[in-house]
Amino acid sequence: MLKAVIIGSGNVAQHLIKAFLNSKKIELVQVYTRNSEAVTHLLASNKITNSLNSISEADIYIIAVSDDAIADISLKLPFTDRLVVHTSGSVALEQLDTKNRRGVFYPLQTFSKNKEVDFSKIPLCLESEQSNDYKILEETAKAISPLLYTIDSRQRQSLHVAAVFVNNFTNHMYTIGNQICNKNAIPFDILRPLIQETAAKIELLTPLEAQTGPAKRKDEKTIEKHLKFLKDDNQKAIYTLLTQSIQKTDV
Amino acid sequence: MLKAVIIGSGNVAQHLIKAFLNSKKIELVQVYTRNSEAVTHLLASNKITNSLNSISEADIYIIAVSDDAIADISLKLPFTDRLVVHTSGSVALEQLDTKNRRGVFYPLQTFSKNKEVDFSKIPLCLESEQSNDYKILEETAKAISPLLYTIDSRQRQSLHVAAVFVNNFTNHMYTIGNQICNKNAIPFDILRPLIQETAAKIELLTPLEAQTGPAKRKDEKTIEKHLKFLKDDNQKAIYTLLTQSIQKTDV
Repeated sequence: MLKAVIIGSGNVAQHLIKAFLNSKKIELVQVYTRNSEAVTHLLASNKITNSLNSISEADIYIIAVSDDAIADISLKLPFTDRLVVHTSGSVALEQLDTKNRRGVFYPLQTFSKNKEVDFSKIPLCLESEQSNDYKILEETAKAISPLLYTIDSRQRQSLHVAAVFVNNFTNHMYTIGNQICNKNAIPFDILRPLIQETAAKIELLTPLEAQTGPAKRKDEKTIEKHLKFLKDDNQKAIYTLLTQSIQKTDV
Repeated sequence: MLKAVIIGSGNVAQHLIKAFLNSKKIELVQVYTRNSEAVTHLLASNKITNSLNSISEADIYIIAVSDDAIADISLKLPFTDRLVVHTSGSVALEQLDTKNRRGVFYPLQTFSKNKEVDFSKIPLCLESEQSNDYKILEETAKAISPLLYTIDSRQRQSLHVAAVFVNNFTNHMYTIGNQICNKNAIPFDILRPLIQETAAKIELLTPLEAQTGPAKRKDEKTIEKHLKFLKDDNQKAIYTLLTQSIQKTDV
């Protein structure tokens, strides 16, 4: 059974810790964090360390810390020639210090503290410098999800940008929907089924097939009515730009 | 049991026909359409007419045609003082001819020809001029969904605009995600779980609580990297505007 150490105690680290603890195919030997209280509810205190010098031996070290801290922590690791990977969508493999064998283990999902996730539905994007290490990465990943993808650093960067559109920006569309409801004394609940169906459609159709609405059907009368209705300049600007963008999109 | 006539044979009309046929609480007595082939697979031919003069007597007439055709068809109806409603999010009640009692029966959902919908999860936005008619509207609506909302014309317009944001514009975010994947030889499937989770979060959290990403955490380094990565001017403009909008949004 492969042995793993997780470095970090934030959102991604905590979700990974839970997934590994639930898996019978991998042994989580230790978690390193400077903030041990963040993980004491998840595992026994003898498996938590805040000292780099007492870090355990393992087949794979998974750095799940904020992007800015990845290079620094990889530099401080007191060992060499072991497999060290990070979990970031936007940091290149090369940011990891060369004294260890390097790789990336990027779970493409949105993690919130207050919402459990099912790792078996999370695509894991894997990259390694050495082909032997890819097997370790793959075995580690398989322990928690069947959705494995070989993704190089350039592709991972593009995925991270795509994820900003389909997650962050989509969620902001929900926020604007919520703002419009609030302003007109309508419960936001009324929009929730539409939000669910909009996503559900994408399981069956391509986004181009699923596109509907005034922009798509070039219904200028309705577009004009909506722009007149919107009093907020920011919402107006977004409506205008996205309407143009839909109309420019090739089918 | 209430008797209903549906006028129209497009997307919304077809989904309503199926919902009424499946309900034991309402009798769909007839469908009027100039394009009877569109509905012959749904109901017996003696229940379909293309002549306004042979339109049946009913408790409620539901006009489910394109926005531009609503006023015209309501004018041509060869009877008076009956309850006539339309199903549009963006057309005022006043567009219906005054010779009949007027109302609105707006299902807030996105309908596609190739995707079944579960009406019991669709919010129905109801409006009537006369309070007695509201009871008929309510009984009709209850026959297919428990999610009833009293929504006046002004509120309905705001809902329609909100729906453009949470549905049309969200779907366009998926399209851009798809474009970025295509350009980088990545299967779009890899984004589907993220799309589902983004929507699923909204069942438990408010959009403001669910917001994550570089814009939200004011991670200028990543934002700059993403803008440098994006070569398409349109995608760049959308990224910039939505990032600013997230950063301006009050928590």
